[in-house]
Amino acid sequence: MTIFTFSCTQSTTKNEIAKQETEVKNDPLPSWNEGSSKKAMIDFVTKTTNEGGADFVPVADRIACFDNDGTLWSEQPLYFQFFFAIEQIKAMAPQHPEWKDNQPFKAILEGDMKTVMGGGEKALLQILKVSHADMTTEAFSASVKNWIKTAKHPKTGKLYKDMVYQPMLELLAYLRAHEYKTFIVSGGGMDFIRPWAEEVYGIPPYQVIGSSGKVKYEVIDGKPQLVKLPELNFNDDKEGKPVGIHQYIGKRPVFIGGNSDGDYAMLEWATTQTSYKSFGLIVHHTDEVREYAYDRTSSIGKLEKGLDDASKYNWLVVDMKADWKTIYKN
Amino acid sequence: MTIFTFSCTQSTTKNEIAKQETEVKNDPLPSWNEGSSKKAMIDFVTKTTNEGGADFVPVADRIACFDNDGTLWSEQPLYFQFFFAIEQIKAMAPQHPEWKDNQPFKAILEGDMKTVMGGGEKALLQILKVSHADMTTEAFSASVKNWIKTAKHPKTGKLYKDMVYQPMLELLAYLRAHEYKTFIVSGGGMDFIRPWAEEVYGIPPYQVIGSSGKVKYEVIDGKPQLVKLPELNFNDDKEGKPVGIHQYIGKRPVFIGGNSDGDYAMLEWATTQTSYKSFGLIVHHTDEVREYAYDRTSSIGKLEKGLDDASKYNWLVVDMKADWKTIYKN
Repeated sequence: MTIFTFSCTQSTTKNEIAKQETEVKNDPLPSWNEGSSKKAMIDFVTKTTNEGGADFVPVADRIACFDNDGTLWSEQPLYFQFFFAIEQIKAMAPQHPEWKDNQPFKAILEGDMKTVMGGGEKALLQILKVSHADMTTEAFSASVKNWIKTAKHPKTGKLYKDMVYQPMLELLAYLRAHEYKTFIVSGGGMDFIRPWAEEVYGIPPYQVIGSSGKVKYEVIDGKPQLVKLPELNFNDDKEGKPVGIHQYIGKRPVFIGGNSDGDYAMLEWATTQTSYKSFGLIVHHTDEVREYAYDRTSSIGKLEKGLDDASKYNWLVVDMKADWKTIYKN
Repeated sequence: MTIFTFSCTQSTTKNEIAKQETEVKNDPLPSWNEGSSKKAMIDFVTKTTNEGGADFVPVADRIACFDNDGTLWSEQPLYFQFFFAIEQIKAMAPQHPEWKDNQPFKAILEGDMKTVMGGGEKALLQILKVSHADMTTEAFSASVKNWIKTAKHPKTGKLYKDMVYQPMLELLAYLRAHEYKTFIVSGGGMDFIRPWAEEVYGIPPYQVIGSSGKVKYEVIDGKPQLVKLPELNFNDDKEGKPVGIHQYIGKRPVFIGGNSDGDYAMLEWATTQTSYKSFGLIVHHTDEVREYAYDRTSSIGKLEKGLDDASKYNWLVVDMKADWKTIYKN
């Protein structure tokens, strides 16, 4: 009996492993629950990559663009880039004694976020200028790399770079496995995302589009360098997103993913009167337990027009709570 | 005897074919004459792709950037984009009777190129505004595609798109075969190059960087579109080239090719105090019979600083006449 049981168990284990392997092979999106969202994405990718089919898209035109904040990683209670800026300012404070008496720096150093946020756009610009300019592109990139390796989110205690959505990582990989080129099109800073996007998302810097500051080339003591200037170059948000896609990619995407009304224009552009079948996706933050729940009234990631018009444009609204088995990568 | 001769000939033919095949296999740059230029490029690519070697460059960092006009195709007697602009204006003239009395349009319509060129930068800007703006990006792209299919060069009678340099096409393919990503970094218009770069150079639009105009997103009668505005967005020339490489690629190239002082800054930036072994290449136009011969005093493609400093920076100056077996693709 013992021997029989043993051999029976072994056989079951083998079968289970084989079953799991088959499932993984058959299921490119294991962190997505079965249902209409998952089915819609798989149907689309299958149809557009089926040579000879009516909806076939040639490899050269398989362009997929994704927003970053709130679409590929979390964005609450503040954009993570803002946490980075605040921590940079705190680190630089000893060299700037005058900040103790000047807003918004005073409030940042005192941890008074209410006053910081109350300063509006003017305060935000001052923060960005101090933390994102007047240094070489290489020095900035190094400071971002250093931060992303160690900085942790105030609520979850996770590394920010581990707060990327596992289901979206699988979608990116699934698209790439079908010869889609994946791009990021973010309202956030291009120079902030690029230093880690290759490691975290498998997306190289030249496929990361975002907002940017002006940059100046100069040669100092025989050493050529690029210096970040405190001046906006391009605002890659709202109507800027389709413009950014044109300027950087030069092709109309067939797959677009976003989560807020900042993504509305690129969703609209990529899915209206196109030459190919196209796919629009909106990540709807509905999970107040595992992540956050917000949409129409949120100051960050406001989603109103997108929800109102999703059915008109046939955009898939992903219900994070219902559609995602897992939220984060780790 | 007949049989013997036949079999002997057959054997020779077989040997010759085998020999040719081996040569092609062993020679990735068949249109380059043997010599130090060819050897330097092959040595560099071999060393930087030899895993475990001291000069190894990881695949993710194998970025190669090339200027377009005068580096990948001819640029005399005028930049080809200028011929395009002139032909567009001639085609639009019936809708603009006022042009008959206004410069530089009057001179263009009368074929008086001396007056056109005498108008300097102001005239050039007027020409670009009329021929490159106030239309959708898609309409502009279609007009470029249409032109490039049929337009011929006034001196050679060749299609412009056949006036790309065969040796440089081989270099692009050779780099790509060794997992280098090839980019164009041109002072010419990005929207002018992208519609044909994929077919002609094997370079997709998102790897073409160039000068650009501003673009506006708008929805007209429910149809979203991008409209080209008569306003400069980015001047990708001289010090703009390293800036453009940063903004669009986000990595420092290890292989850079140019032909004029407009490429000096990007050559300098990519080959000075770099983390990897790097390679700078300058195409020197020395062949007045098969192409053109010009450098220090040319108004188009002026090359002076580049020649003066090439040895200081260890840039390879390609002698078109001596180094190239063939000039054009066709």
